[in-house]
Amino acid sequence: MTDQHRHDTRLDRFVDSYSQRTEGMRVSAVRALFSVANRPEIVSLAGGMPNIKDLPLHHIADSLAAMIETNGTKVMQYGSGQGEGVLREQIVDVMALEGITAHPDDITITAGSQQGLDLVTRIFCDPGDVVLAESPSYVGALGTFLSYQCEVVHVPTDESGISPTALRETIERLRAQGKRIKFLYTIPNYNNPSGVTQPWERRLDVISVCESEGVLVVEDNPYGLLSLDADPIPAMRSADDNVIYLGSFSKTFAPGFRVGWVLAPHAVREKLVLAQESATLCPPVFSQYAIADYLTNNDWRGQIDIFKDMYRARRDAMLLALAEEMPEGTTWTRPAGGFFVWVTLPEGLDTQAMLPRGVDARVAYVPGPAFYADGQGARNARLSFCFPPPDRIKTGVRRFADVVRRELEVMNTFGVSHSPTLSRPAPGPSANLT
Amino acid sequence: MTDQHRHDTRLDRFVDSYSQRTEGMRVSAVRALFSVANRPEIVSLAGGMPNIKDLPLHHIADSLAAMIETNGTKVMQYGSGQGEGVLREQIVDVMALEGITAHPDDITITAGSQQGLDLVTRIFCDPGDVVLAESPSYVGALGTFLSYQCEVVHVPTDESGISPTALRETIERLRAQGKRIKFLYTIPNYNNPSGVTQPWERRLDVISVCESEGVLVVEDNPYGLLSLDADPIPAMRSADDNVIYLGSFSKTFAPGFRVGWVLAPHAVREKLVLAQESATLCPPVFSQYAIADYLTNNDWRGQIDIFKDMYRARRDAMLLALAEEMPEGTTWTRPAGGFFVWVTLPEGLDTQAMLPRGVDARVAYVPGPAFYADGQGARNARLSFCFPPPDRIKTGVRRFADVVRRELEVMNTFGVSHSPTLSRPAPGPSANLT
Repeated sequence: MTDQHRHDTRLDRFVDSYSQRTEGMRVSAVRALFSVANRPEIVSLAGGMPNIKDLPLHHIADSLAAMIETNGTKVMQYGSGQGEGVLREQIVDVMALEGITAHPDDITITAGSQQGLDLVTRIFCDPGDVVLAESPSYVGALGTFLSYQCEVVHVPTDESGISPTALRETIERLRAQGKRIKFLYTIPNYNNPSGVTQPWERRLDVISVCESEGVLVVEDNPYGLLSLDADPIPAMRSADDNVIYLGSFSKTFAPGFRVGWVLAPHAVREKLVLAQESATLCPPVFSQYAIADYLTNNDWRGQIDIFKDMYRARRDAMLLALAEEMPEGTTWTRPAGGFFVWVTLPEGLDTQAMLPRGVDARVAYVPGPAFYADGQGARNARLSFCFPPPDRIKTGVRRFADVVRRELEVMNTFGVSHSPTLSRPAPGPSANLT
Repeated sequence: MTDQHRHDTRLDRFVDSYSQRTEGMRVSAVRALFSVANRPEIVSLAGGMPNIKDLPLHHIADSLAAMIETNGTKVMQYGSGQGEGVLREQIVDVMALEGITAHPDDITITAGSQQGLDLVTRIFCDPGDVVLAESPSYVGALGTFLSYQCEVVHVPTDESGISPTALRETIERLRAQGKRIKFLYTIPNYNNPSGVTQPWERRLDVISVCESEGVLVVEDNPYGLLSLDADPIPAMRSADDNVIYLGSFSKTFAPGFRVGWVLAPHAVREKLVLAQESATLCPPVFSQYAIADYLTNNDWRGQIDIFKDMYRARRDAMLLALAEEMPEGTTWTRPAGGFFVWVTLPEGLDTQAMLPRGVDARVAYVPGPAFYADGQGARNARLSFCFPPPDRIKTGVRRFADVVRRELEVMNTFGVSHSPTLSRPAPGPSANLT
């Protein structure tokens, strides 16, 4: 492309034509930094990519080749807007591992569970409607809620997740203000970013508050089967058929197929299918058959155990390194599964302002404010242990600790965390922010 | 599932919670009929599914297996929100066949071009905004526009597509009414459903009107390379870099991968990527690499020639059967490509009311009103020649003609087309309505 062409197409003559919702879509300030952070000398504790190096590629290749030869004109054709029946039946078996009893007809397959979030928000939320979320919550969900012009209100959490008392108070306060609450969005297992897991009793308490207040629960469970210390706690959906449940194959198999699902009461499912047809006609058909084939012809439960062993070693490496390296006054969560540790730095530090110095010290992380719609999280950072090997994690944590120590010294000398600061990132997913 | 469970989940306790846009999503009355129409004894001239029986399945299987073995952890991982660079470069070559000069950086890959429509509407349209469309237009696009609460206004067309004079008058009339027009949506090649192609001069005239009136053009071109009589006419985008262009691999390769794209000016492309990330994080990664592999390792241009020979024989069979079978007073278009013939029956007939009798006579088609947002098209039907073999097409047209003849007899005896009628279908795509 010539410079001239680049110049011509960069002018935005459409600036007055965009929809109001487009104003809520902003490029995150941290995103530019992350493109630098992908350099090999940098230890990235930022990304949420599953590590799929242990998949049986040879076996998968053979099996998919046979599928194409015998069934190619079906698996490469248009499919059902709801998703293929064979996979929906298998998904029922997957969900049974977390205590869910469901029927394939109540499942809508989506292009990753991100699209599940998009479609659920699409069918429920008008501009100005309130979505309740954990404090902190998944950056990609916040971006979707904001793109539908929702107001996101964070509910205070403790070490067991959402506080039922605070939840009820928040609902009552918002209703007193005349606000319309559409649903509570929650990640009860190994929350992204906090790593916190809601115990069973807490799940029941949260459901009970929502039921008595008439607030729908949307349970997002991408990491549920990646329990590193004990068997998974049954899903919230197992206690209440009215919970809308989002599942995904991205972490238990592979994310590149973009296949997730929504389990919803029948009336909601009908709307979801209409929304799916309007959005994409049908979810990726070849991907669905590829996953159905994988589930049929591979020991997928055994593969999850292999993944769990790998992630456990990495989590343990991170927790050990944090204990050894972090300066006094720093705290962090101890996740029982999933991908993430949530770090709280001493009062006065600013993870957002610190990020360029982190990258300079060859370590990347996601600053806390990305996980809030309201500017909280200045002292927080999400560190992910899913992708780098244990020795790299150790190196990364050491570099992170060094940066924090230097920040503390500067603060103790000058009284505040020093510039330059970045503007607060708009929540919005990227490959680094899953 | 027990009846009890079915009963429990069918009650819609969420009826007061849906968004306003969800009210525009309705189950089409013809959809139930189409599930019947998929019975093997019925000749379906309704579906818009490409016929992919001639694809080299053995070669595709081998090639994809090799791709997984050598590159599995990349092709099954998360990818770019904009789409993979290697495929965007190849798409530049595909578009060059229709006279388009473009840069890979201005392409956003989508989950089928249906998602391109969804994202373009998402970034441009607020509720109440007007989208201009051909008369008739693609049912799936109308469904998407309505799901974003747009007002669709059809522009009168003639045998060369959109009338430039009528287009200007429509724009001026709407603006005099204070309406905000966001874009003109057009399928200039072998329009779905009309089969009409806009000649080059007409394209320039339409672009000229839109440019002088400041209306954006969205060019949808799924069938462009399936020209059956002559070389393709250059795309509208080749004449104007500000045209937003939607492309697809669904008809030139296979729809099950769900890969299409949007070529847009740079500023618009930035918004599309943000919208894509919010909708699905990234378009289907494995699918993109599968298509990139297909384009690299297969004679894809030669395969399009094979498809064209197949579709040409089917189109010719349909046009011959229509000429031999249809009663006087019926007219139809003669498409130079694509999948569809648009039939206009004698005044007074109602294709919607007639459909159950068509299915009873073992032929299915799509009634004209599906392709209008405003209730036009009562005398029209879309007949597709893409899927059944020529002898089945001939049988289907004969059955269709018999039904029309009986309708005419009844009308001539009783004065009106007889009941029962179906309610007007809400536009909305399904596997039968692509």
